Amino acid sequence: MTHLCLDDLERAARTALPGEIWDFLAGGSGAEASLAANRTALDRIFVIPRMLRELTGGTTEAEVLGRRASLPVAVAPVAYQRLFHPEGELAAARAARDAGVPYTICTLSSVPLEEIAVVGGRPWFQLYWLRDEKRSLELVRRAEDAGCEAIVFTVDVPWMGRRLRDMRNGFALPESVTAANFDAGAAAHRRTEGLSAVADHTAREFAPATWESVEAVRAHTNLPVVLKGILAVEDAVRAVDAGATGIVVSNHGGRQLDGAVPGIAMLEEIADAVSGGCEVLLDGGIRTGGDVLKALALGASGVLIGRPFMWGLAADGQAGARQVLDLLAVELRNALGLAGCDSVSAARRLSTRYER
Amino acid sequence: MTHLCLDDLERAARTALPGEIWDFLAGGSGAEASLAANRTALDRIFVIPRMLRELTGGTTEAEVLGRRASLPVAVAPVAYQRLFHPEGELAAARAARDAGVPYTICTLSSVPLEEIAVVGGRPWFQLYWLRDEKRSLELVRRAEDAGCEAIVFTVDVPWMGRRLRDMRNGFALPESVTAANFDAGAAAHRRTEGLSAVADHTAREFAPATWESVEAVRAHTNLPVVLKGILAVEDAVRAVDAGATGIVVSNHGGRQLDGAVPGIAMLEEIADAVSGGCEVLLDGGIRTGGDVLKALALGASGVLIGRPFMWGLAADGQAGARQVLDLLAVELRNALGLAGCDSVSAARRLSTRYER
Amino acid sequence: MTHLCLDDLERAARTALPGEIWDFLAGGSGAEASLAANRTALDRIFVIPRMLRELTGGTTEAEVLGRRASLPVAVAPVAYQRLFHPEGELAAARAARDAGVPYTICTLSSVPLEEIAVVGGRPWFQLYWLRDEKRSLELVRRAEDAGCEAIVFTVDVPWMGRRLRDMRNGFALPESVTAANFDAGAAAHRRTEGLSAVADHTAREFAPATWESVEAVRAHTNLPVVLKGILAVEDAVRAVDAGATGIVVSNHGGRQLDGAVPGIAMLEEIADAVSGGCEVLLDGGIRTGGDVLKALALGASGVLIGRPFMWGLAADGQAGARQVLDLLAVELRNALGLAGCDSVSAARRLSTRYER
Amino acid sequence: MTHLCLDDLERAARTALPGEIWDFLAGGSGAEASLAANRTALDRIFVIPRMLRELTGGTTEAEVLGRRASLPVAVAPVAYQRLFHPEGELAAARAARDAGVPYTICTLSSVPLEEIAVVGGRPWFQLYWLRDEKRSLELVRRAEDAGCEAIVFTVDVPWMGRRLRDMRNGFALPESVTAANFDAGAAAHRRTEGLSAVADHTAREFAPATWESVEAVRAHTNLPVVLKGILAVEDAVRAVDAGATGIVVSNHGGRQLDGAVPGIAMLEEIADAVSGGCEVLLDGGIRTGGDVLKALALGASGVLIGRPFMWGLAADGQAGARQVLDLLAVELRNALGLAGCDSVSAARRLSTRYER
Repeated sequence: MTHLCLDDLERAARTALPGEIWDFLAGGSGAEASLAANRTALDRIFVIPRMLRELTGGTTEAEVLGRRASLPVAVAPVAYQRLFHPEGELAAARAARDAGVPYTICTLSSVPLEEIAVVGGRPWFQLYWLRDEKRSLELVRRAEDAGCEAIVFTVDVPWMGRRLRDMRNGFALPESVTAANFDAGAAAHRRTEGLSAVADHTAREFAPATWESVEAVRAHTNLPVVLKGILAVEDAVRAVDAGATGIVVSNHGGRQLDGAVPGIAMLEEIADAVSGGCEVLLDGGIRTGGDVLKALALGASGVLIGRPFMWGLAADGQAGARQVLDLLAVELRNALGLAGCDSVSAARRLSTRYER
Repeated sequence: MTHLCLDDLERAARTALPGEIWDFLAGGSGAEASLAANRTALDRIFVIPRMLRELTGGTTEAEVLGRRASLPVAVAPVAYQRLFHPEGELAAARAARDAGVPYTICTLSSVPLEEIAVVGGRPWFQLYWLRDEKRSLELVRRAEDAGCEAIVFTVDVPWMGRRLRDMRNGFALPESVTAANFDAGAAAHRRTEGLSAVADHTAREFAPATWESVEAVRAHTNLPVVLKGILAVEDAVRAVDAGATGIVVSNHGGRQLDGAVPGIAMLEEIADAVSGGCEVLLDGGIRTGGDVLKALALGASGVLIGRPFMWGLAADGQAGARQVLDLLAVELRNALGLAGCDSVSAARRLSTRYER
Repeated sequence: MTHLCLDDLERAARTALPGEIWDFLAGGSGAEASLAANRTALDRIFVIPRMLRELTGGTTEAEVLGRRASLPVAVAPVAYQRLFHPEGELAAARAARDAGVPYTICTLSSVPLEEIAVVGGRPWFQLYWLRDEKRSLELVRRAEDAGCEAIVFTVDVPWMGRRLRDMRNGFALPESVTAANFDAGAAAHRRTEGLSAVADHTAREFAPATWESVEAVRAHTNLPVVLKGILAVEDAVRAVDAGATGIVVSNHGGRQLDGAVPGIAMLEEIADAVSGGCEVLLDGGIRTGGDVLKALALGASGVLIGRPFMWGLAADGQAGARQVLDLLAVELRNALGLAGCDSVSAARRLSTRYER
Repeated sequence: MTHLCLDDLERAARTALPGEIWDFLAGGSGAEASLAANRTALDRIFVIPRMLRELTGGTTEAEVLGRRASLPVAVAPVAYQRLFHPEGELAAARAARDAGVPYTICTLSSVPLEEIAVVGGRPWFQLYWLRDEKRSLELVRRAEDAGCEAIVFTVDVPWMGRRLRDMRNGFALPESVTAANFDAGAAAHRRTEGLSAVADHTAREFAPATWESVEAVRAHTNLPVVLKGILAVEDAVRAVDAGATGIVVSNHGGRQLDGAVPGIAMLEEIADAVSGGCEVLLDGGIRTGGDVLKALALGASGVLIGRPFMWGLAADGQAGARQVLDLLAVELRNALGLAGCDSVSAARRLSTRYER
């Protein structure tokens, strides 16, 4: 069957994946209130399109972290992508490369970062702060050496949120999937009733990062540093002061603090407050080109796509992942024109309105 | 069974029409969020009726584009009406004529515009901007020559929205139904999985219009020009400046930008902004005389009826289409009086209130 | 089974009554949006109760139209009560009398007004404006002569709303039930498909009232005149100027203009605007003593109960109707005390808050 | 099955308890609108978490009524706990003691208060005002003598709300469960159709308290006095003036005035108004550590947990009750850190936002 929108690929992925892996991907923390709120908040936003403007030469291209991308979209970091497809991060990175958008390699990638980076395209590296600062900075150095173009520093995971689906499933990684970037030990593979082995593992490895950690990373690399997981205006402003090149306004896909405000609800205020001091990216709940348009209209320079990209990967490997970006491209091109915008920057001047 | 409201005719039409033709009529674009929002927005509006006012001589008559109509209602442009009934546009135009309201002939009518115009009544002509400006202006000229009284220039279709129902159905026109106003080629009849042949066809024929196109039309005809598909206040004001006699505040029945604000949500602000500089019509989701009353109270001089008129046509040809207008007339007469209004202009001074 | 709240009696009535009579009682006009909104609006209002105040000697008694009643409640006019129980208005009036609250005799009562008035208690008379002003005033005179204490002039029925349930049922009065106050002819008994004989009959008999009609009534009687069906602040203020002793803020139970704002949504603004210039009563959707408390807190001096009283009548005649008022009394006494109020007037100083 | 959140224990309790006892615990008054609103109001609140702050040494400890507790949580008064488990209040008090949080002994405890107090930990005593002031003060004296640390004076029960579930069930206490703190007579055990024997009993025993009662209690004891059941800002301010050490902002779990505003909806305004003049506790609908976080962010110094603690007790006695507090502790520790807070007082400086 032809897939006409990302939700079609969600259905395909749900069929393709074992239940507990689906849950690992789809679930949020706690009662999943923030997960649901991400969509609800987007659904309440309506755009006021403009008419009769010149659309010749219209393009979806965008400057993302200082370089051209085919879309104002990057692939969000998602851990352990070999859970979703045997080729995991390699297939995913190739799809992003071919589609012309940045791909974020995870600290918890199931393929070594250097092997992913060699795929080419525009790799970014997502950093979790490890208990040992030296090991954290070593990862940054490896990423830079491997050719990554940016460090996406996840700042909203002092530890993992309580993802009840994984706990109920007693979820553990299969032996074939490991944290490939460091010698991780057996914790992530140990099945225990009522416990997520993945959470247990990260609790052993990660430590809460602080603004000092940000300074340490910044001092350690020449790459632009993006802080992912900002929701408070004060933190966004401080990120600019701390020399961040960008921030990702995000509640981590509803997987960290259940009850955290959706990023999209904070976006406009944050974009106004930083007023160009750094790039403002958004993630959480983006499922269509029209959603991308809403984020742009509220001040984002681009969005990150997490779960939907994995749907494509699960449904059909590299080709499926590529299809996600192709569909988004078609939808965004369509939406931009229907809103009277010949470019991504024109979309940022659209007005919006809340309607239940 | 007696039809007591337009929704009764919807049920009848759904029964009468093949699934894919029903979908072509009923569907919106994308996730159909704007389609649903049109109704939700109307349902939230409540009118504050006035009591004990003189109702003698009360009338539903209205001045629409400078001429009397029996109702503040016109029939919206809907493409290919022979899909819904073998007599198509002819039956529809006769029904509108007999009911005393304007009928909008489509660029994509399935009967040549001249044959429809000869039915009489008050024909308007809806213009899609074609790739070749000369052919566009030729259509305007033909419409004027045929006796049309206004040009309704659709400004929200640089190209068609992604109407997923049609794409899923691989919808194509049957051989017996064609774009009768020009030599259209075979594109609209070619079935392809995952593709709407109608969208494909229009993509080949149409081009994005601009404010220059509006000026070209205005310069080319003596008829009043109405811009259909305005949602932004700035565009409404510019339409006045561009010499438009009227605008239709509309999100194209939720069929173009999915996520576009409902027209009814913008109506009051737009009517205030143009403050009589041009006529302000509204379409999208009107299903009862009470809905018409709401639009009037928010500043519209009238509304356009699209899908419901087609329900009548599908259910019972000319008689069914006529019944739609007769029911609206009865309902509007009823609503006006119950709101203490002896005229359409009195309704425009009613207050409204939003309730969940 | 013991009835613990009015909704219990609704279920009993629904079982007791033939479907089309239930529909006649329960239905609203059009899509029944205003009917539903009456409840939705009440459900959104929350009261801020006060604590630790003296409750000794607490009472539910209230001054209603200048006389003490056991509750700030009156029985609303409901036509043709013999539809619901063979003893109709007589049983109803006796129940109200015994409970110590006013009972409103209808123009369309199925027992002659004089026979109802003789029951005693505190009868009021509801007036519909007839085509012949003299006959209207004659009804007022008869009511006054019979001992009615107030004229409740219904001002929101220039004609009846489109009550689709009755039209679908082709509803007509059974031969045994007639408009007993005047020689009504056969219209109300004539079954026609798609038509409500009751609506047809009133269309023949009634005429739209105007402010002149109010003046005529006022000049014709010494009784206090209450205008029932006010929703606009301007009309409320004008009612005071016109010498009205009271108004009933009401959308006629959602049976007239579908899309009319709920009375409860206008109540506070209207009560503030008339600021004691006349009594402000409220009807529409009141189902519990807590609902009465909400109306008082928003500025009403009392409420009218329509459908629920008929539920009691249908379920168990005079005893059932009485039970409705007894339950309301128990609930209101309970609610007043729990809100820290020893009287109805104390309740009018409570604050409220909207939630969802 | 492992219980991962309090809702898991709710399901277990529902299975464990006879229907009418479940109803006695779960039910609210009237149509249970306030009961539902407690949850709805919490669900609308979203927290804006802060990132990258120092979390080392983070703790959930809190000062509650002047003494350290392991959590900003106390066990709310719930009557007749032997209904839920044979060991009733003894098991409950032991669980609270072991978890390090205050436990509130009820006037209507099914074990004598002295026997519960001897369990140790931090017992508080909840006071209902009895018809005989002397007996009320005697209870206060007994509580103080037994070692209770605070008097929680319930001010929102001049009499019990209409809890329809109990009335429908004709609920009465089994012989084995009695009001153990006074010679209560047989009323609470007498089954009558349509009546709650518990409500009947309290109607015989209780009297409405007033501000004079508060003064009498304050004068009679050296213990801090907390007024439970405050919703109006004026009452909160007056509580400070009356010498209260704390207040519990509460609508009594939706069991008193149906239609009373949820406590959480008044919390921020009340906390601002008393501005540290007394401790502000909150109850009603708290089900997760994230809910506790919301209450803290809106200005509470802590929350009371009622029904969920009883779920644990019903599901597994002392161990189950303890598990409720352990789960809350884990969840709150998690939520605090994910919101960037190393302490309960830091949480009180978080911002919140309403969504939908």
